[in-house]
Amino acid sequence: MVSEVVSKAERFRALHHGRVPGEPLVLPGPWDAASARVFVDAGFPALATPSAGVAASLGYEDGATPADEMFAAVARIVRAVDVPVSADVEGGYGIAPKELVERLLEAGAVGCNLEDSDGGVLKDAARHADWLAEVRGAAGGQLFVNARVDVFIHGDSDPERAIERAALYVAAGADCVYPIGAPSDVLPLLRAGIQGPVNVLARLDGPSMSELGELGATRVTFGPGLQRRSAEAVRETAVGLR
Amino acid sequence: MVSEVVSKAERFRALHHGRVPGEPLVLPGPWDAASARVFVDAGFPALATPSAGVAASLGYEDGATPADEMFAAVARIVRAVDVPVSADVEGGYGIAPKELVERLLEAGAVGCNLEDSDGGVLKDAARHADWLAEVRGAAGGQLFVNARVDVFIHGDSDPERAIERAALYVAAGADCVYPIGAPSDVLPLLRAGIQGPVNVLARLDGPSMSELGELGATRVTFGPGLQRRSAEAVRETAVGLR
Repeated sequence: MVSEVVSKAERFRALHHGRVPGEPLVLPGPWDAASARVFVDAGFPALATPSAGVAASLGYEDGATPADEMFAAVARIVRAVDVPVSADVEGGYGIAPKELVERLLEAGAVGCNLEDSDGGVLKDAARHADWLAEVRGAAGGQLFVNARVDVFIHGDSDPERAIERAALYVAAGADCVYPIGAPSDVLPLLRAGIQGPVNVLARLDGPSMSELGELGATRVTFGPGLQRRSAEAVRETAVGLR
Repeated sequence: MVSEVVSKAERFRALHHGRVPGEPLVLPGPWDAASARVFVDAGFPALATPSAGVAASLGYEDGATPADEMFAAVARIVRAVDVPVSADVEGGYGIAPKELVERLLEAGAVGCNLEDSDGGVLKDAARHADWLAEVRGAAGGQLFVNARVDVFIHGDSDPERAIERAALYVAAGADCVYPIGAPSDVLPLLRAGIQGPVNVLARLDGPSMSELGELGATRVTFGPGLQRRSAEAVRETAVGLR
């Protein structure tokens, strides 16, 4: 069991490296077991849960999902598929790093997203880096840590701020940096300034995956975009029935 | 709280009575909180969960969902909306009638679907009626009991068998009878032979709601049809991303 988890985590990490520019790793974000199976059936080699999509499926506002429910939802998704699944666990729910790692591994996740803001306020970057280092220490190689950099979604459009934060997080052991909400035109700057894989948030009506890859994305995710698109399709069916 | 639940159950029961022929009660089947909200936003006055749809969302084969997970999923759906929600609890999971009623009420359901077959085999109708009477006795007026009649899905196409079973279940206190899989052309016979509301399973590509109403449906549901349609839409999006 442990060796299976480790090997899945290694497989997941390997997907982020040696990629051809213009061919980023595209990770759809499932919100339940059914959507996870659909994404795997469509041929995606790994998945990354979006906290906001899972929250919507469970009936919570984004950021209000109780930790137990989030871990249970991640476990259901992991159980439904054979591919590696990374879990968005927001700011870690106030759980100490060692227990946070244990709970992610128990749920079967091979990686996690961790945010550097809380309630719309950016955390102190150095303290957050220390916390990430503790997570890294507890996880060893068992988790791929994707460190979200929230400056763009909280009003600071200077890419240098993102690059500074990213450097601290990479030094703390993050495997990937996720400058969520970064405009496409700063991606080349971020790509040049950040060491290692960069996760870019894609919009379904925005630049294509390969365009984002050319601009610097190593990995592309959609946040709750796919869950919202699904809800829109359900809405169309429902309106048709009325 | 109790009075609110009772009043919701009464509201739900009332929706089944005094309907104009050709205008059946249409109850979409949500599989998670997000789909429930979409259906309510589209204007449906009540919902009825489909066990197979919930199972797919949770990652189980139809019929293999653990009772605790089914009740938890129902509770999440109930919590997400203000309208009455009936719960498909399959064959009752081997839970004694009194506890089954308690768990449905704890989850916030105003009614339930209960099947008269198990693993593809029809139950003895008289014994099943006795069991339904126990559920009725435990529930009083707090739950709207929809008694499924499974003859058509298990190969007996004689509508008289369904009518005989329905009579036993109505005498036992069922509020509605659900001859799942009945072909459209026998609906007028069933309508004439069954006392009280009749639930008809609709296919999204089959006769319209109003056609089913004219044929005899008091209430129309879709089983897992809406969850499957949603999964199909997700598949299209996923294939588009590849």
